[in-house]
Amino acid sequence: MNFKISKRAFQSALNIVARAISSNSPLPALSGIKMEVEHDSITLTGSDSDISIQTVLHGSDEDCGLIVKEAGSIVIEAKYILEIVRKIDADEIELEIVDGSLTRISGMSAEFRINGMRAMDYPAIDFTRPSQQLQMDADLLLKIISQTTFATSDRETRPVLTGVNMKCNGSHLECVATDSYRLAKKTVELDSENHFNITIPARSLNEVARTIDSDGKIQIAVSDKKAQFWIGDTVIQTRLIDGAYPETERLIPTEFQHELTVDSRDMLSAIDRASFIKNEGISIVKMSANSEEVVISSKSQEVGSSVENLNIIQYEGNPLEISFSGKYVFEAIRVLSATTIKIFFSGEMKPFIIRNVDDDSILQLVLPVRTYS
Amino acid sequence: MNFKISKRAFQSALNIVARAISSNSPLPALSGIKMEVEHDSITLTGSDSDISIQTVLHGSDEDCGLIVKEAGSIVIEAKYILEIVRKIDADEIELEIVDGSLTRISGMSAEFRINGMRAMDYPAIDFTRPSQQLQMDADLLLKIISQTTFATSDRETRPVLTGVNMKCNGSHLECVATDSYRLAKKTVELDSENHFNITIPARSLNEVARTIDSDGKIQIAVSDKKAQFWIGDTVIQTRLIDGAYPETERLIPTEFQHELTVDSRDMLSAIDRASFIKNEGISIVKMSANSEEVVISSKSQEVGSSVENLNIIQYEGNPLEISFSGKYVFEAIRVLSATTIKIFFSGEMKPFIIRNVDDDSILQLVLPVRTYS
Repeated sequence: MNFKISKRAFQSALNIVARAISSNSPLPALSGIKMEVEHDSITLTGSDSDISIQTVLHGSDEDCGLIVKEAGSIVIEAKYILEIVRKIDADEIELEIVDGSLTRISGMSAEFRINGMRAMDYPAIDFTRPSQQLQMDADLLLKIISQTTFATSDRETRPVLTGVNMKCNGSHLECVATDSYRLAKKTVELDSENHFNITIPARSLNEVARTIDSDGKIQIAVSDKKAQFWIGDTVIQTRLIDGAYPETERLIPTEFQHELTVDSRDMLSAIDRASFIKNEGISIVKMSANSEEVVISSKSQEVGSSVENLNIIQYEGNPLEISFSGKYVFEAIRVLSATTIKIFFSGEMKPFIIRNVDDDSILQLVLPVRTYS
Repeated sequence: MNFKISKRAFQSALNIVARAISSNSPLPALSGIKMEVEHDSITLTGSDSDISIQTVLHGSDEDCGLIVKEAGSIVIEAKYILEIVRKIDADEIELEIVDGSLTRISGMSAEFRINGMRAMDYPAIDFTRPSQQLQMDADLLLKIISQTTFATSDRETRPVLTGVNMKCNGSHLECVATDSYRLAKKTVELDSENHFNITIPARSLNEVARTIDSDGKIQIAVSDKKAQFWIGDTVIQTRLIDGAYPETERLIPTEFQHELTVDSRDMLSAIDRASFIKNEGISIVKMSANSEEVVISSKSQEVGSSVENLNIIQYEGNPLEISFSGKYVFEAIRVLSATTIKIFFSGEMKPFIIRNVDDDSILQLVLPVRTYS
């Protein structure tokens, strides 16, 4: 193996595949980046076995400056190759296997010789593209991810809740996340027809979001075992979470007795202030609403209390007293990216719904908390 | 106690005194900020008993917007008061003791009631100004601190080495830091005469540096027990480290057989690259110099090796092979803020000296490392 490549192109490709690599990998080879050099391309692979990222650098791409003198393959510890390429102060970088798996990496007057690992010791990862395919704007995929993943569970007791459920019936795609105390549901109309019901780990979706830097189209391919996101010459492949996703539709109330309309920023900052008062690390915020005023308050034996008159646009319905997790409501409102929000309540102990008045594709649901004060 | 004050002025004063507060304070009262309100001023104090910071807000200062309705004093948990003042979205903040030590903090429509602590439970801190006094430009003090503190020891085995020794003989001030493997010495000519020999904890000096945001004059007052730095209405007071500081003058060689002149950035990036190869977390860099070339290299059984030809300005002397800690030499060169540096060697196993060719007030010394390769 022996090739020259533009430092900038190589570094950016290495950074992309390195995202899949976990610092405490079970297999030593998975702490490395696999490089497969053919006569006119380099394929880079990084994986932690849950997520795998592969990207191809082509000799035909001028910015890439790739000149292959000899094909071959090697695996080099991700943190070594990333840091060396970053530190080498040259436009062009040269890599060559000099002896067994000892690899020379050089640029300008600096030269490193690094102990690599044999590519044959790297696990085989199947990147075949499944047949169920759809495409969507990068912007839309980013929005789906940011508006749902935060509501997934971070506990492994019910693994299926650590992912976002994506159910496609024809051109209608529903993406749902819940940790059983809150729920986010995004509805999207696609321009192709598919039928699937899969649950993608939230962590994988967040990696996909971090890798999207263009505003083009993303190709998505799914089977019942894996999902792939194609962004140009890069594919991010993730395993799916096994198990049936709970039926959530019946949890979402459809009739409401109280309705609060409020500026999103006013509500966020009032909750942020009230959330400062914590009980054992948790902020419970109380809202007391009537036709005259809406008061946000919080209380803790140890710290003290807060109270403020919320600046509202409108409140309709009978008086209501309800308590909720400040964190949950704050996060739900934040991802709506709304100017004005509406909150629909159907009672003190019933789940309530938060919506962006300008975008009905996204629904946020939060369960209230019982308090004894 | 009852007063109104500009949020901006109050917040910035709270942030300053909070710097002295340690998150794991032995005394509960020291996790708070003491506020002493008199008829036309507020004195804020924060301390961890090693460092104490006090600042005064005056009613006569218009930007401060201070209006005192009732004098009094209270101690409020630093993290509470800082976060509440930050979160209150108002130009003016009001504080009032409402019941015992329960304190109302309010602004706009938001109101907090926080459990405070009685000011009488706060330890007495003597801020009397010692008689030995000098003044210096803020810039110069910042330079002294940045060029010396990094070379202090972080081990408590020899406490005196965790501080910077400041020895003043007339108008001549020498500031020395060493961890016994490297040494930094800054020499300053003052415009007043004093005689003292004190050792100030590096941590205190770093806090002083963080608090200096002006380019005015700093007043320094020292006794054999404490040092004070006066910056406007703020005083930072630190305990001194007991014990005789070692005589370091005789450790600094005065005769040299080899002299390397090199662009500071070239040397820093070559060392940075070579330092990447670590042995058990430590980077040993080898320099091989002769009249033809200067080669920087490093080696590790596990990772691999690096080698590069250093771009030099001049090398005078016989051939030399010397090894040193990459981290120590890198840090020493970085704080010189030099364009061109000179390194003076007197042999493979002798300490060497690094200087900024344009500033002879600062000297950096590093001990070489013995290697067996």
